[in-house]
Amino acid sequence: MIIGAIEAGGTKFVCGIGNENGEILDRISFPTETPERTTQRAAEYFKDKGIEALGVGSFGPLDLDKNSPTYGHVTTTPKPGWNHYDLLGHLKRELNVPTGFDTDVNAAAFGEARWGAAKGLDSCLYYTVGTGIGVGVYAGGQLVHGLVHPEGGHVPMRRHPDDKFEGACPYHGDCLEGMAAGPAIAKRWGQGGDSLPEDHPAWEIEAHYLAEAITGAVLLLSPKKVILGGGVMHQSQLFPLIRGKVARNLNGYVASSALDDLETYIVPPALGDNAGLAGSLALGIEALRG
Amino acid sequence: MIIGAIEAGGTKFVCGIGNENGEILDRISFPTETPERTTQRAAEYFKDKGIEALGVGSFGPLDLDKNSPTYGHVTTTPKPGWNHYDLLGHLKRELNVPTGFDTDVNAAAFGEARWGAAKGLDSCLYYTVGTGIGVGVYAGGQLVHGLVHPEGGHVPMRRHPDDKFEGACPYHGDCLEGMAAGPAIAKRWGQGGDSLPEDHPAWEIEAHYLAEAITGAVLLLSPKKVILGGGVMHQSQLFPLIRGKVARNLNGYVASSALDDLETYIVPPALGDNAGLAGSLALGIEALRG
Repeated sequence: MIIGAIEAGGTKFVCGIGNENGEILDRISFPTETPERTTQRAAEYFKDKGIEALGVGSFGPLDLDKNSPTYGHVTTTPKPGWNHYDLLGHLKRELNVPTGFDTDVNAAAFGEARWGAAKGLDSCLYYTVGTGIGVGVYAGGQLVHGLVHPEGGHVPMRRHPDDKFEGACPYHGDCLEGMAAGPAIAKRWGQGGDSLPEDHPAWEIEAHYLAEAITGAVLLLSPKKVILGGGVMHQSQLFPLIRGKVARNLNGYVASSALDDLETYIVPPALGDNAGLAGSLALGIEALRG
Repeated sequence: MIIGAIEAGGTKFVCGIGNENGEILDRISFPTETPERTTQRAAEYFKDKGIEALGVGSFGPLDLDKNSPTYGHVTTTPKPGWNHYDLLGHLKRELNVPTGFDTDVNAAAFGEARWGAAKGLDSCLYYTVGTGIGVGVYAGGQLVHGLVHPEGGHVPMRRHPDDKFEGACPYHGDCLEGMAAGPAIAKRWGQGGDSLPEDHPAWEIEAHYLAEAITGAVLLLSPKKVILGGGVMHQSQLFPLIRGKVARNLNGYVASSALDDLETYIVPPALGDNAGLAGSLALGIEALRG
């Protein structure tokens, strides 16, 4: 079985092929340009690969309602040219195989549930913390959609008492993304997180906001694993800080032994930076199974 | 088809019978006493009713994991005598019919999805705001469980800027339940909400906390309807206040026309105070269908 997978990001597209075991057999990556040029390039990559299905995990917002006339479109993105672009439709016409389609973060959650840190579990949350913050929600053995799809990067939170930063989200100011995504870190400290030392106070503040959002999500959804990926989470000193704050926030309220040791509960993606592409592969496999 | 339903509350048990259309044909209510006496009384009520299945929506926390040896138990409740009580097991032994079991708020969400305000939709949130605050989560056509079950009454929130109340939750102080459940209102103002006038500042503060929690949940889960029930929500002046604050919080970010008019999105239960019992009935019907 050869399945195609696309991790469609706002900055770059990653295309690959893989099999039913989640093994990525080949991959390429190229910058996201105009939608026409970008999808054309993806289609060319897959053309002679003999794929039986295609899974796409995309930046959003997306129309994921299969009954909608605009199913498969990128909808209200500010990204030039991509607004209301029929991404899935273009790929389907070029490649003519069954397709699966979801957000990049839902795909990553699905990949981790199928082959990664949440393998064998029927629920998990996947946070990506990078240029933006996105949340994938897998519950009861399926990815969560609704009116649209999870937008958990924009939840309101209690501010850190020592943090005077006004926030960088154009919609909400000091929501999670506005306080804790890469650009917020850079704006707050006048330099990117990459150049801040491991013991810089930035990380304690960063952990605060992520812990606030995770606490709320754990209480609301009771997920069996919380997975934190994305560029900012390469700062591995964040993990113990976040776990400590979540434990303090929950204060023993949720009666589950899984929460006794947050070191195995709040974790990095087992698939590393492959979670998104592997998840798209899993979406393609699902599409083939109908 | 005659199905039995129990809304098992910490203060009172409501038992009833109904049919596949959600019609409640008979009901009784009695105080929650010792677990033995209370389940015995429920069993006696159903004994000659010819029920084909039984649905139970219960106060918690509960063990809802069907593979667990303590499935169907009330677990770590502080309620005297009920700690680790095998509620479902006792009822099963007495009545010997297929059973469905979930939290009282998940049951209410299910009832509203089957026959009420979320009829025909595959997702909704149900908040009950009373002696405590509970949240039922219905997503992708199924009730959400996880490590345990949703405990969304205890999420952290931004404080109201004029509110000096320290909060009444023994675990978290100023979580949603600690700030906005009935006892928190009574403690903050020195009198119960029932005796406060409709234009008292209490309601603007109450709406703030509910709106904070709802905003976070709408962003994380994108539910197709948010239903607010329970005694405190009989204060109907809360609805427009909450809708206004949620709209301000979201600030147009979530691209769905369903959010253009929050009057049809954030609503009281269409089944009124019957949501819980009707939901338990729906759980019983599901159990019969296997």
